[in-house]
Amino acid sequence: MKKVHVVYCHPEPKSFVGSMRDTVCHALSESGWQVTLSDLHASQFNPVASAADFGQRERSDHLVYSLEQRHGWQHKTIAKDIAAEVEKIVDAELLVLVFPLFWYSMPAQLKGWVDRVFLSGTFFGGRRIYDQGGMVGKRAMVVTSLGGQSHMFGPEAIHGELNGMLRHLLQGTLGYVGFDVCEPFYAHHVPYVDDQARGAMLDQLDREMRVVDRRPTLPMPSLEAFDEQFRPRVTKPSY
Amino acid sequence: MKKVHVVYCHPEPKSFVGSMRDTVCHALSESGWQVTLSDLHASQFNPVASAADFGQRERSDHLVYSLEQRHGWQHKTIAKDIAAEVEKIVDAELLVLVFPLFWYSMPAQLKGWVDRVFLSGTFFGGRRIYDQGGMVGKRAMVVTSLGGQSHMFGPEAIHGELNGMLRHLLQGTLGYVGFDVCEPFYAHHVPYVDDQARGAMLDQLDREMRVVDRRPTLPMPSLEAFDEQFRPRVTKPSY
Repeated sequence: MKKVHVVYCHPEPKSFVGSMRDTVCHALSESGWQVTLSDLHASQFNPVASAADFGQRERSDHLVYSLEQRHGWQHKTIAKDIAAEVEKIVDAELLVLVFPLFWYSMPAQLKGWVDRVFLSGTFFGGRRIYDQGGMVGKRAMVVTSLGGQSHMFGPEAIHGELNGMLRHLLQGTLGYVGFDVCEPFYAHHVPYVDDQARGAMLDQLDREMRVVDRRPTLPMPSLEAFDEQFRPRVTKPSY
Repeated sequence: MKKVHVVYCHPEPKSFVGSMRDTVCHALSESGWQVTLSDLHASQFNPVASAADFGQRERSDHLVYSLEQRHGWQHKTIAKDIAAEVEKIVDAELLVLVFPLFWYSMPAQLKGWVDRVFLSGTFFGGRRIYDQGGMVGKRAMVVTSLGGQSHMFGPEAIHGELNGMLRHLLQGTLGYVGFDVCEPFYAHHVPYVDDQARGAMLDQLDREMRVVDRRPTLPMPSLEAFDEQFRPRVTKPSY
């Protein structure tokens, strides 16, 4: 059975984003996915990366977070809340992040989930990035809400491209560790629209989640195009 | 006397980013700035936006965070740690954020500082964004460290433009609320270089902070170019 891990973060349980989470889980479940869900706000997930994440340290005098991530994972001494999330992601073919857009990024609690859970070593390391990353073969998708309208985003629009605003997440985080990154689902103008419009957005989300396997993905760099120092390879003409 | 508020976030007190913080504060102080400093990790700043931020609510049945931000600020019932940061920013001509780049963005604790402190109403609202934003007339600057080398960033480079990776922060956050956003200071390849190279980066940072008043700023949208719905104005030819 195909597995999906859904990570949700919103401070208000009755929010529209909560309804998006329910729609995502229901549509995926109905189309044959086995769903696990982490509700970061409800579980009071700790977003602050710190020395307390490591029961035993490789270097006790100076915290190098990525070094201790590798050490802690290898020796099974990493914090249990981190290990539980890593296992769910590794076990799944699909990761879905459901959140309200705060400052063109994730709410801090979800950002801290990335900071703590996307372990150096397991998720990436050295040349193990992009199409050589630890999550190669899996898909990831962002499902988010925002106040802005769609005409405010685009090459000539006031805020530029919305996928560009989210490049730190879509490319710099999800693509970087090897996920095939699906086109995000954006629910625009949410605080200003009526229940009918919100219902239509949830219907649309339901339909799109049922075919997530065929959802278009975003272009990402391929390591073949870069040398050992990550410099672009120059293809010499053959004449 | 010119005032600057420096916000610093790193889990290791002896880190290179801690030295960058000291360099920033020292250089600014020596060049006539009155410096306030918030150390988010040391003060255990809470990064999670929640109902607990509001002593008294406009709507107790359903949390709309931006609505409660406006209500809480107006009625002086917002959490004290938020109010203290807002006052320091409003009081200063310059805001400097000093942090290690985590996933091409801020560590979660600093992201949560933005989520909680950049209040709807005071910082932005309606058409009060970009050059009409609440922080117009002030400058902001990002000082950050990363593992990547400079040749990994640029139009043809593996990760694309580094300022583009940070567009959610530079434009979507700092520019959005009206700051003139200085070119960031990037310390590249920090975990892999020797003490001499690190010292040279700190010397460079020291020199650059002393002339922060004249530092180039990034281009941002101007509201004059957009109509009431934020659509691009079409300038009609006059013939």
